[in-house]
Amino acid sequence: MAGTTRPEPAPGMMAFMDHPLDAAIALAPQADGTLLGHTHPAYANMVGPYGGITAAQALNAVLQSPARLGEPVALTVNFCAALADGAFTAQARAVRTNRSTQHWTVDLQQAGEVVATATVFTALRRDTWADDEHRMPEVPAPEDLPRARAAAPVAWLQRYEMRLVEGAIPAAWDGAEHHDSTTRLWVRDDPPRVLDHAALAALCDVFFPRIWRRRATPVPVGTVSMTVYFHADAAQLAATCSGFLFAQAKAQAFRGGYFDQTGQLWNRAGELLATTHQVVYYKA
Amino acid sequence: MAGTTRPEPAPGMMAFMDHPLDAAIALAPQADGTLLGHTHPAYANMVGPYGGITAAQALNAVLQSPARLGEPVALTVNFCAALADGAFTAQARAVRTNRSTQHWTVDLQQAGEVVATATVFTALRRDTWADDEHRMPEVPAPEDLPRARAAAPVAWLQRYEMRLVEGAIPAAWDGAEHHDSTTRLWVRDDPPRVLDHAALAALCDVFFPRIWRRRATPVPVGTVSMTVYFHADAAQLAATCSGFLFAQAKAQAFRGGYFDQTGQLWNRAGELLATTHQVVYYKA
Repeated sequence: MAGTTRPEPAPGMMAFMDHPLDAAIALAPQADGTLLGHTHPAYANMVGPYGGITAAQALNAVLQSPARLGEPVALTVNFCAALADGAFTAQARAVRTNRSTQHWTVDLQQAGEVVATATVFTALRRDTWADDEHRMPEVPAPEDLPRARAAAPVAWLQRYEMRLVEGAIPAAWDGAEHHDSTTRLWVRDDPPRVLDHAALAALCDVFFPRIWRRRATPVPVGTVSMTVYFHADAAQLAATCSGFLFAQAKAQAFRGGYFDQTGQLWNRAGELLATTHQVVYYKA
Repeated sequence: MAGTTRPEPAPGMMAFMDHPLDAAIALAPQADGTLLGHTHPAYANMVGPYGGITAAQALNAVLQSPARLGEPVALTVNFCAALADGAFTAQARAVRTNRSTQHWTVDLQQAGEVVATATVFTALRRDTWADDEHRMPEVPAPEDLPRARAAAPVAWLQRYEMRLVEGAIPAAWDGAEHHDSTTRLWVRDDPPRVLDHAALAALCDVFFPRIWRRRATPVPVGTVSMTVYFHADAAQLAATCSGFLFAQAKAQAFRGGYFDQTGQLWNRAGELLATTHQVVYYKA
């Protein structure tokens, strides 16, 4: 994912550093070994930044380290507090390096306080027997579906082109209970951008809160922990290019103020690129 | 989960500190603020300890901290290296404490090297609207199923009473491909023990590797990262007592030497107690 290994953008696509995602995840090395980043207005959420961009920033602290071995396989991000608009410091530490694997811990700080922690596992991947046991469902092509209008006036929703297949955000907050929280959609960066692990990490948080789907009530929510398992290597992501991903998410349990969500993201070829889980605070 | 809040063992059940799980997760505070633990022969695996017991030890470093706020909601454990038999040092740090939530980082070290890292999120839970969207399937009662014989001569398998519903470990390593990796079983501690978060964390790793189920080939494997979302609070776990849990796991993708697994554990009342995910190295 280092800048030098990135493919050239295709004609009509923005150069990498001009894309808001790249501007948002940029981290500048400091003399003390930490990295300096900034929240980016293009990914602003209602309070603080879009969680997916925080995940991509934490991952990028590892991706851009010269000490990194291999590609990301697992990422867990814990959201400790809403980030304030402005600068943050990231620190990535390789706590264990094995022959072909590496374990990292990351924290993001603002004003001397931890606002996010993360762990990242990277590995040199090998060609092996492979199978996508969780198959992509048969769904209409994105070209046959209308683009979803942003459901709220927040910036990050403009950064994704979404075409809903099933499970839209409620059209009315009428408190009508729905028995199934599933949402399925086609999604890609807007403007289009060649996929890589940082962009994919950000995409894993693209689903609106499952509790809103179930209860049609806009209760306060906030993701507290999110995990991404990357099944795709850099070559597979580059080959996916700027194409749509098919993404779905579904809750498993709601109780005591927290619910979880399990999700999958495939490319149009039906390759399962990432599986993702998160646990979310809700007030209800 | 502190010793003083534990319910008295029921008649016929072992006192808590006599149970091998409690002996295995015991951590002694040291003068430097770290905790001293030991691997336990009752939970030995083929190489190093059973991963579930390492997860329970990492969680227990938080559970037994006097600074802990609330109960565990999310746990991610990263297995950095096989633990050697013997002592380890655990360190749990509360990196962010909010009004009703707390974020922890944990590491386990042996001989000055990190062997595992973890993050734990704890929270004061509130009564809310609740629902188990992922319902427990209809399956035969554990009393109507035979106890599974341990498939390998490793100690930890003796620590769980398992009654297979579906998806046994292959009877023959004949390389026959199976299309579905699902395993479903009833499981509880052996000897029986009142359920708590540490025991539940350990139970989340009880499934044999999905790649063995798919390929009927005993390839080398090792979990590299595991996440548990706890949907049950301490009262609900205590009420579950020493009863069987219904547990299921299924892989989603196998590629490049790593596969993932998604799992759920319910009590006999059909309450979803925990959802769990892991990513596992495989050589194939």
